[in-house]
Amino acid sequence: MKIIIAGAGAMGSRFGIMLHQNNHEVILIDGWQAHIDLINQNGLKANLNGEEVIAKIPAYHQDQLAEVDFAAELVIVFTKAMQLDAMMQAIQGMLQTETKVLCLLNGIGHEEVIQKYVPFENILLGNTMWTAGMVGPGEVKLFGNGTVDLQNLGEGQEEIAKETAKVLTEAGLNARYADNILASIYKKACVNGTMNGLCTILDSSMADFGETAPADFIVENIVKEFLAVAKAENVNLDLSEVLTQIKGCYNRETIGEHHPSMHQDLITNNRLTEIDYINGAIVRKGEKYNIPTPYCAFLTSLVHSKEEILGAK
Amino acid sequence: MKIIIAGAGAMGSRFGIMLHQNNHEVILIDGWQAHIDLINQNGLKANLNGEEVIAKIPAYHQDQLAEVDFAAELVIVFTKAMQLDAMMQAIQGMLQTETKVLCLLNGIGHEEVIQKYVPFENILLGNTMWTAGMVGPGEVKLFGNGTVDLQNLGEGQEEIAKETAKVLTEAGLNARYADNILASIYKKACVNGTMNGLCTILDSSMADFGETAPADFIVENIVKEFLAVAKAENVNLDLSEVLTQIKGCYNRETIGEHHPSMHQDLITNNRLTEIDYINGAIVRKGEKYNIPTPYCAFLTSLVHSKEEILGAK
Repeated sequence: MKIIIAGAGAMGSRFGIMLHQNNHEVILIDGWQAHIDLINQNGLKANLNGEEVIAKIPAYHQDQLAEVDFAAELVIVFTKAMQLDAMMQAIQGMLQTETKVLCLLNGIGHEEVIQKYVPFENILLGNTMWTAGMVGPGEVKLFGNGTVDLQNLGEGQEEIAKETAKVLTEAGLNARYADNILASIYKKACVNGTMNGLCTILDSSMADFGETAPADFIVENIVKEFLAVAKAENVNLDLSEVLTQIKGCYNRETIGEHHPSMHQDLITNNRLTEIDYINGAIVRKGEKYNIPTPYCAFLTSLVHSKEEILGAK
Repeated sequence: MKIIIAGAGAMGSRFGIMLHQNNHEVILIDGWQAHIDLINQNGLKANLNGEEVIAKIPAYHQDQLAEVDFAAELVIVFTKAMQLDAMMQAIQGMLQTETKVLCLLNGIGHEEVIQKYVPFENILLGNTMWTAGMVGPGEVKLFGNGTVDLQNLGEGQEEIAKETAKVLTEAGLNARYADNILASIYKKACVNGTMNGLCTILDSSMADFGETAPADFIVENIVKEFLAVAKAENVNLDLSEVLTQIKGCYNRETIGEHHPSMHQDLITNNRLTEIDYINGAIVRKGEKYNIPTPYCAFLTSLVHSKEEILGAK
């Protein structure tokens, strides 16, 4: 199968390597020139559960695709959320009428970007529990195990989703067809939509925030906005179940003393955040469905102000 | 006139000294024992526009008033907002049927606390532009000029307000009767209700926040809640006028590069904030008038979470 990995960071590299090892025709597309150059010179290096692997996968810069002739059957997008639109635009010429696009990004509403370039019925959404890390340009480390849940967005496209899951599973990626992927995506977004923005603005670990008196009030108000928007999209989530899941993040024995990824992006590394694709997406969808979302709007704005104050890039 | 200064920090000391110099019988009440002891030993020391002044004014700890016999005619409260209730309770025994209470605290809704102890018609509210600073226990510095605006809360009590203004003015405090003190108080609260909480949460100067893209959106949403609540109390403020006043705080040539006082309290000095008497008061009043106040509620909660995270006291 001809597969584009659109966004060849750590996770994209993992999927690329595993699909390439299973004899698919894979190409990597990314915006990091040094990474691309080293992959093309030396192959993509990976420490795959302790074993050194070198995968000879062609890599291209997303701004230099004019001459590349590749009729993709499947695109797996693994960009940062804010880079998705530019990436989709860059690979437009490789998309066929039948090309499927599988989006495994965190956050919600990515289908609104993707469907500017691809028919709705060709879009697959998913969640993955795989992890991966960058060592440096051209090199990744891939430890542990994971799964992928995915589903078609278009009606009657179940077979396509199941076939795609099969392709991934045969490559060792443990994919399965999900009955209600939007529910999983919204649930994950509720966790990210509270922990990420709040711990970033408060410069706090999840437990340090979660143990403050106002935490329940704040979290509940944000989550209610997510659930109201989800409901408008026929996704029904149980408030108390979602709140319980979020409270799990406060546990100091497990992940509670960690700072969520957005805090690392903005406060530690001065990078722009993905807030527009989490709380910001709820605001946009809220406007569409006429649902008030003041908590998400305020939090999104605060994070953007903080980005500017810190000069994040 | 027998006058209690209830809360003898820098501003209370200024009013106490100036009224004492004008031959009123003044006592100071405070909760800071070292300050009280030094005042009683050496007098209250002040650098008053460059001149060294020592004012022999009796000072009492608010927890040791049982034996103090003082039938107050006027009480001027100058506590921190969160200390007001305890102070009013402490001085209860000195309040006569006719005792007037003048409240010059920042923030809104203090009359709700005061009227637990004093008839509504005896309450005067005001704003002051005077400044004052603590040097250390027993010592203050008092530079520059100022004014006081004040008004009666109870109907038909204009004469009392005007007489009180006269007493202050005769002592050099430039007081005047205000036609619509609630409008001034709400206007000032709009500035504090945006700059204070936002610059505290964002750890930012007023200009650094004000120049970010989301600033207008955030400020307008907060101010609209203040104005809706004010309107329910028959105080009509003009949105664009208030917004213009707030934007004046972003001016780097004047005060823009400063951090507001709440930032100094919480971020610099790890002290609890007065957020409950600014945005928090709007939330409480909003509940009373059935006006939604999500922006004020969220900001109040964030500041309280930050207080706990920093272990503020």
